[in-house]
Amino acid sequence: MKKWKTLRSNKLIDTEFVTVKREHCKLPSGLEIDDYVVTEYPDWVNAVVMTKDQELVLVKQYRHGARDSFLEIPAGKVEGNESDEEGVIREVREETGYQSAHKPICLGDYYVNPAVQSNKVKTFLILEAEMVHNQDLDVTEDIHIEHINFQDFGQLVRKGTIQTQLLSMSGYLLASAYLSNKI
Amino acid sequence: MKKWKTLRSNKLIDTEFVTVKREHCKLPSGLEIDDYVVTEYPDWVNAVVMTKDQELVLVKQYRHGARDSFLEIPAGKVEGNESDEEGVIREVREETGYQSAHKPICLGDYYVNPAVQSNKVKTFLILEAEMVHNQDLDVTEDIHIEHINFQDFGQLVRKGTIQTQLLSMSGYLLASAYLSNKI
Repeated sequence: MKKWKTLRSNKLIDTEFVTVKREHCKLPSGLEIDDYVVTEYPDWVNAVVMTKDQELVLVKQYRHGARDSFLEIPAGKVEGNESDEEGVIREVREETGYQSAHKPICLGDYYVNPAVQSNKVKTFLILEAEMVHNQDLDVTEDIHIEHINFQDFGQLVRKGTIQTQLLSMSGYLLASAYLSNKI
Repeated sequence: MKKWKTLRSNKLIDTEFVTVKREHCKLPSGLEIDDYVVTEYPDWVNAVVMTKDQELVLVKQYRHGARDSFLEIPAGKVEGNESDEEGVIREVREETGYQSAHKPICLGDYYVNPAVQSNKVKTFLILEAEMVHNQDLDVTEDIHIEHINFQDFGQLVRKGTIQTQLLSMSGYLLASAYLSNKI
């Protein structure tokens, strides 16, 4: 389909994590929009991490966008010259201390929200993970590790017993579909 | 877990669709961050829409955040005093012309990305939908309708035959889990 033309693009803010732009766009119909907001993030990686006992390794942390705490799968952004696989292995090790002798299995990558956001998230499944390190957190991070049985997680979320978020839930559903040969 | 304190919050832009704020935050550790970016959107609704023949009713449109076109499930925001159900029925009717005699089934609601974003998305499943109207699009919208068999969709995405995005894929996986009694 025909793309919009960007007539002007002004950075509203530019940090290590995000760049927000106000764009003046011309649509194929000729219509112009002068305040379209595009949010640019680096690509993200996340992982459904499971122990030999089919327990999910989850991270609980405060999230300032929603002013609340969430139980999530480990996630982050790829650094420097890392591959996506190296990035996700490092993020999981830093946030949880877990690693696995098995290679991460790629479950797919998707634009997170392409209407307004530039980046993709690539999701991995890491099986038979074991805790072999201490956490190695950034100064801004305060992360509690929790274990929940893989099969129970979906029901606990659906009942409202635990609060997760869309990126974690979609990772769980991708892993669930992969493990039951649905995708 | 302990919340961050917001010491200052400045609006960088405020449109009908989004408000972006730069916040000066104090963490429980005492550390301060002066450029935390929070993106506030209204809550969203979306729907996995299926015909009597188990065909998904999908919408293809250009998405300016990623500068590309995507095949998605119908989605939008609730308007005025509408309930979430009324909002999703209206969005589906406007974008596709489809409606159903059956009530939308709620598949769950999730914060989209609570680290940096304030809003939730509520996902519905609409079964036995029929085309009974013409599309009724906003002036900025150019939407093509496509049908894909529900069972085939996951494989076509995984093979890269069609390009979708995370909110649509998670909707599909939620519907798939619901229909197979997994959640």
